[in-house]
Amino acid sequence: MKQIIEDLYPMNACLLGEGYDNRLEYIKKLIDLKIYNFPSGTEVGTWTVPDEWIVRDAWVKFKGKKIIDYKKNPMSLIVGSLPFSGTVTRDELAEHLHYSDEMPDAHPFEFKFYEKDWGVTMPKNKVLKGGEVILKEGEYEVFIDTEYKPGVMKVATHTIQGKTDKEILLFAHLDHPFQANDNLSAVACLIDLVKKVKPKQYDHTIKLVFCPETIGSIAYAMSEDISKVDFVIALDIVGNESKEGILLQKSFHTNERINNVAHLALRGMGSGYRQAVFRSGIGSDEYVFNDPSIDIPGILFTTHPYKEYHTSEDTPDKINYEMIEKVQYAVLKTIEYYEKDFTPVRKFKGPLHRSKYGIQTKGKQLNLSWDYFIYAMEHGKTFSSLCVDFGLNYEHTLEQLQRLIDDGQVSVSPITGERTLKKTTRKKH
Amino acid sequence: MKQIIEDLYPMNACLLGEGYDNRLEYIKKLIDLKIYNFPSGTEVGTWTVPDEWIVRDAWVKFKGKKIIDYKKNPMSLIVGSLPFSGTVTRDELAEHLHYSDEMPDAHPFEFKFYEKDWGVTMPKNKVLKGGEVILKEGEYEVFIDTEYKPGVMKVATHTIQGKTDKEILLFAHLDHPFQANDNLSAVACLIDLVKKVKPKQYDHTIKLVFCPETIGSIAYAMSEDISKVDFVIALDIVGNESKEGILLQKSFHTNERINNVAHLALRGMGSGYRQAVFRSGIGSDEYVFNDPSIDIPGILFTTHPYKEYHTSEDTPDKINYEMIEKVQYAVLKTIEYYEKDFTPVRKFKGPLHRSKYGIQTKGKQLNLSWDYFIYAMEHGKTFSSLCVDFGLNYEHTLEQLQRLIDDGQVSVSPITGERTLKKTTRKKH
Amino acid sequence: MKQIIEDLYPMNACLLGEGYDNRLEYIKKLIDLKIYNFPSGTEVGTWTVPDEWIVRDAWVKFKGKKIIDYKKNPMSLIVGSLPFSGTVTRDELAEHLHYSDEMPDAHPFEFKFYEKDWGVTMPKNKVLKGGEVILKEGEYEVFIDTEYKPGVMKVATHTIQGKTDKEILLFAHLDHPFQANDNLSAVACLIDLVKKVKPKQYDHTIKLVFCPETIGSIAYAMSEDISKVDFVIALDIVGNESKEGILLQKSFHTNERINNVAHLALRGMGSGYRQAVFRSGIGSDEYVFNDPSIDIPGILFTTHPYKEYHTSEDTPDKINYEMIEKVQYAVLKTIEYYEKDFTPVRKFKGPLHRSKYGIQTKGKQLNLSWDYFIYAMEHGKTFSSLCVDFGLNYEHTLEQLQRLIDDGQVSVSPITGERTLKKTTRKKH
Repeated sequence: MKQIIEDLYPMNACLLGEGYDNRLEYIKKLIDLKIYNFPSGTEVGTWTVPDEWIVRDAWVKFKGKKIIDYKKNPMSLIVGSLPFSGTVTRDELAEHLHYSDEMPDAHPFEFKFYEKDWGVTMPKNKVLKGGEVILKEGEYEVFIDTEYKPGVMKVATHTIQGKTDKEILLFAHLDHPFQANDNLSAVACLIDLVKKVKPKQYDHTIKLVFCPETIGSIAYAMSEDISKVDFVIALDIVGNESKEGILLQKSFHTNERINNVAHLALRGMGSGYRQAVFRSGIGSDEYVFNDPSIDIPGILFTTHPYKEYHTSEDTPDKINYEMIEKVQYAVLKTIEYYEKDFTPVRKFKGPLHRSKYGIQTKGKQLNLSWDYFIYAMEHGKTFSSLCVDFGLNYEHTLEQLQRLIDDGQVSVSPITGERTLKKTTRKKH
Repeated sequence: MKQIIEDLYPMNACLLGEGYDNRLEYIKKLIDLKIYNFPSGTEVGTWTVPDEWIVRDAWVKFKGKKIIDYKKNPMSLIVGSLPFSGTVTRDELAEHLHYSDEMPDAHPFEFKFYEKDWGVTMPKNKVLKGGEVILKEGEYEVFIDTEYKPGVMKVATHTIQGKTDKEILLFAHLDHPFQANDNLSAVACLIDLVKKVKPKQYDHTIKLVFCPETIGSIAYAMSEDISKVDFVIALDIVGNESKEGILLQKSFHTNERINNVAHLALRGMGSGYRQAVFRSGIGSDEYVFNDPSIDIPGILFTTHPYKEYHTSEDTPDKINYEMIEKVQYAVLKTIEYYEKDFTPVRKFKGPLHRSKYGIQTKGKQLNLSWDYFIYAMEHGKTFSSLCVDFGLNYEHTLEQLQRLIDDGQVSVSPITGERTLKKTTRKKH
Repeated sequence: MKQIIEDLYPMNACLLGEGYDNRLEYIKKLIDLKIYNFPSGTEVGTWTVPDEWIVRDAWVKFKGKKIIDYKKNPMSLIVGSLPFSGTVTRDELAEHLHYSDEMPDAHPFEFKFYEKDWGVTMPKNKVLKGGEVILKEGEYEVFIDTEYKPGVMKVATHTIQGKTDKEILLFAHLDHPFQANDNLSAVACLIDLVKKVKPKQYDHTIKLVFCPETIGSIAYAMSEDISKVDFVIALDIVGNESKEGILLQKSFHTNERINNVAHLALRGMGSGYRQAVFRSGIGSDEYVFNDPSIDIPGILFTTHPYKEYHTSEDTPDKINYEMIEKVQYAVLKTIEYYEKDFTPVRKFKGPLHRSKYGIQTKGKQLNLSWDYFIYAMEHGKTFSSLCVDFGLNYEHTLEQLQRLIDDGQVSVSPITGERTLKKTTRKKH
């Protein structure tokens, strides 16, 4: 994965255009890709695919000396900057000058694709010192040679065939120039995942989707057949060491089964993890699918926040590859638990003789949890939701429950027609 | 409004009788009134219209000297006192003597219309000093020449014609002798409101109702046609400066639309305001209509509490007329928002491209609120309830939403048959 | 009750066997009993009736001297200990040696009927001193002459005939050797209750059930006709002085009417009491019936916790008989309130004229509670649940409501078919 991130990092990948296309070409050499084209001007919902943004040169001179130079540092120019040429005062320049308060020695990653303006960036420490402006007064010569022209936005998918045509979509956005963790960490994670999954290993056909964030997933959702998609997992920023552990950001509808199995997958890994509600922290392509007008549950795995976020300091050398592997493991466990899940049906009457099935523990709490687990079976709940509700481990509890299943005390009922069913019933409330 | 309050204040207006009738006569010179008569003995629900209470004289003498004299101060006698004549000890007098702990220099406003007793009032400071009784021991001569005799209780309405025959009732109780804020403030507020509303300005026909508190609104509700009333607003005590601002006391059923629009009206006024659940503070005529057996949503606007409440210190000179005007404005905005309200229907798929419609903000919270506003449209919620749920301003948000409506992305569905519908469905739960 | 507890205490009553049978024989002399027999090996749900456990002798010798001697102190041996004979080291002995941390001078009551092991007990103070082991190193001679052999487990019932064949079951488990409060307190409470109830005093036929805890009630529930049982009350540990008062542990389904009436019964007694959710503290035979596969609501009355719990210090001399009588009173009031309960139906419109019916109070809270009580009648709630919801006393409120009933303002609707109805509707959620 290290090689992938280091190779993709220098390619100046905006929503569409040369840098983005170069990244796709690179990935295509590693795994099969199917490319979907969306020319500039294509309408997708309330959005319109923008023109391609081209930079030929950009600099700012003070007293004849380049103090900002795109060719030396492409992060000196905000992404999507309009062209501009002229002489401005220091105060006029200041209105178009961006810096990061949190990382005063870095260039910020700024993005103005939809709200048009020109702009350049500098480290804060070159602009202000102790609250005082140190950027000298006087005239600044600004030259920004950029252009917007029609292009083609590309979304790419790689398909891992499953036993059925039910689908799972895994998203990693491919844009954001010169940002390693955001989001080449996820891109590398998914490319590497291909090696670890055998065809027909899972019931679901898994599609990896590489696209420009938000508008790419909107375009995919609006134009492709998504009727067979059971759920979406977006990976966004998954390569920083996070003391609190991986964050699972849940789907819009809180009672989705995907939330339960993802939660159980993280909990079963033994290290710390975090949970948050839909869009409470960051949001990536999963939020597009959760929109009630599309109504496919989507979750996000991330290791956000990290201090280099959206600055020139988000570089490949800071990537924590162990964390990327943990996220990859969590994704695969989530899929496995989702597919193994079932509805246990109680066949016995009266309290369970726990000690007969090796479930009795000396402490009272676990016995109570098990009894409540059994009581709640009356309601047709899935195994995963029972494990979540009563704080039980997925794999260990399944092993114990298996003894009851083998003894005919509990039977197994498959979960079928889940998405179709929901589509119908949801409209009613 | 000042003149109105000062003129009405000295009229000794009980539930029924001369003082009350004088107040009605006065108002009739300012605005048209329709009078409804309820003779003593009329049964309205579990209530019976009481007899008229007449006072000819009342005094208490100690050693031949009048220490309490109704003719000098009519608040020396409790409202509704039975007649009494005789000599009593200090301790016997004490059982019939009322004072205010909170306002020790004032006479309390006491009311015994339904639980029969005789009683007089004094400032607490003339009875007790530092916890010690200073009222001298000895014999007190008591003379209370009152009488109960059949009379006629009157409820008066003024009608402001609307475009339709759907009704809104605005209540201000007209009884409570020698109390300016409670409730001549509201009486003046409604009389003045007539000047500010043009016929057919609103869809609803607005009826102002002046009546004795509680029993007057019960009588109206039991005997008049209220099937066209959409909601009731009671104004009770609206003329003291309240640091916390106007209090909106909501209807019994918490999910009524009137609660939402009144809340939005207050919030839109830019000053502080308070909200409380049904009957949590004071309660006035709105509580009669909220009773599930009548089931018309009613709210209360008030500036209560104030320290002169129910004492001889509640006088016209302490009225804050700016506050009365604010309440009047809140009433009209509430009606306006109620009538302008509608159900927005989402017509677009996928996330909204907020920047295209000028809704995008730099801060994240407002963007999220807007997105949730859109998600929630799926549930057929009204515009007003969406504004309340997501903390958005009624007028500003309507202006923004209008751009989406103009672009065909959202359509407008009227709210129809609300009350009739509720009547039917409510009975089921 | 004192005599009963003192007589039953020395009988070594395990789940089944001679000591248990002796206790039954004793009770049979006081009240009629019907005995149900369950031979060892009988399967009841996932449970199997165990063999009878017989002890002939048991001791531990150190240097030829008996340091543990069953014949001197039968609590020296854990209940259900397997036979064992041999010489063990101090550390080997320690693995089978039980003591109580909370009561270091007492022998613990230990119970290993289902998880087979041998074991003896000692006061902790003879094993450890200040964290140091004072039990000497060396060889210990162990002799445990016990045997498991087929026997007959017995459940006994006493029936108090009611006006109908609807049933209430009152449980007191009869096992636990040498434990007075746990549970001879409840056994005595029920035996004594027989004297206080006349035949056909209640609508319900009341059955007192004496049985081995858990497995006894499971056996009864699985083999007898329980279709007419409306609810179950288990009494477990009801004879210690509890500063916090009697604890009502509620049924699994929180909205059962039995919870409300039991709550009102305790509240009406004027002393402190406690409430807890199902199985939050201890659990006894009521939990068997609450199991959703059986689905009969059951509550527990207890005075637990107490410090002598499950030690040799739980002796007859510590029993608080006043508390047992309070629990007995609570049981009878619970039954009375349950049977007297009804659904009040509102017949009047508009607010109630409270003072007309002597319900008006000076304080505001009680008036509000009464009004809400009336509002909530719209929902077909029972009288008991209305009292609970609005904090009103059962008997006093019934007296007040009776005036409204007598005046035709409220009518009385019986609660019928409750259990049958629930059985049907519950399956749906």
